Amino acid sequence: MTARLKVGRPVEPGPELTNSAKSATQLDRLIHERLRLGILSALAAEESLTFNDLKKLLGATDGNLSVHARKLEDANYVVCEKGFDGRVPRTEYRITSNGRKALEKYLDHMEVLIRVARESM
Amino acid sequence: MTARLKVGRPVEPGPELTNSAKSATQLDRLIHERLRLGILSALAAEESLTFNDLKKLLGATDGNLSVHARKLEDANYVVCEKGFDGRVPRTEYRITSNGRKALEKYLDHMEVLIRVARESM
Repeated sequence: MTARLKVGRPVEPGPELTNSAKSATQLDRLIHERLRLGILSALAAEESLTFNDLKKLLGATDGNLSVHARKLEDANYVVCEKGFDGRVPRTEYRITSNGRKALEKYLDHMEVLIRVARESM
Repeated sequence: MTARLKVGRPVEPGPELTNSAKSATQLDRLIHERLRLGILSALAAEESLTFNDLKKLLGATDGNLSVHARKLEDANYVVCEKGFDGRVPRTEYRITSNGRKALEKYLDHMEVLIRVARESM
């Protein structure tokens, strides 16, 4: 299946090569970042999670988690509700339907990429 | 399969949640970057590709492609050979067996992540 490159000739990559490699550069940039992918996967599996739940689950620092959760909020992929648990501040995150759709689309995209990459390896 | 969060109680995420979310943060950072994933996928499918082949294939700028190809070189995931095609300088990239193994490991990792994420969504 592998098209061999003739040195000195212009390359004409098969469609499967173009798809797999080019496709990688078109993955949803917002979701692709590892910690954001972790946050979204976690929230997709639960009704809601607090900042501390996420922090513990993902082994993230406060700063890193804040920054990336904020980016997901800005994209309307997650919503965040601030409140109190007795006197302790509590920040609760939920995935939005937008976020769920985007995650599903990302997983579909990645699945195709993996299949095509394996076929041409 | 989804464990619901009882508000006010400590979260005890099931093993599938821990795996999927935490696992995302442990993806090979070097390969996970989109352009680097594109470069490696392309090189895994061909015997070799020139800088210009990769640039065209991935729609990358010179600067971006240089930086990321260099990171893959530093990790010994690709090797680069500089030469001439007549009087035109020519830079040729190949994936190493190290790089191929790392890409396969990354694809395996991502495949498990996707499966587990889908199961818990």
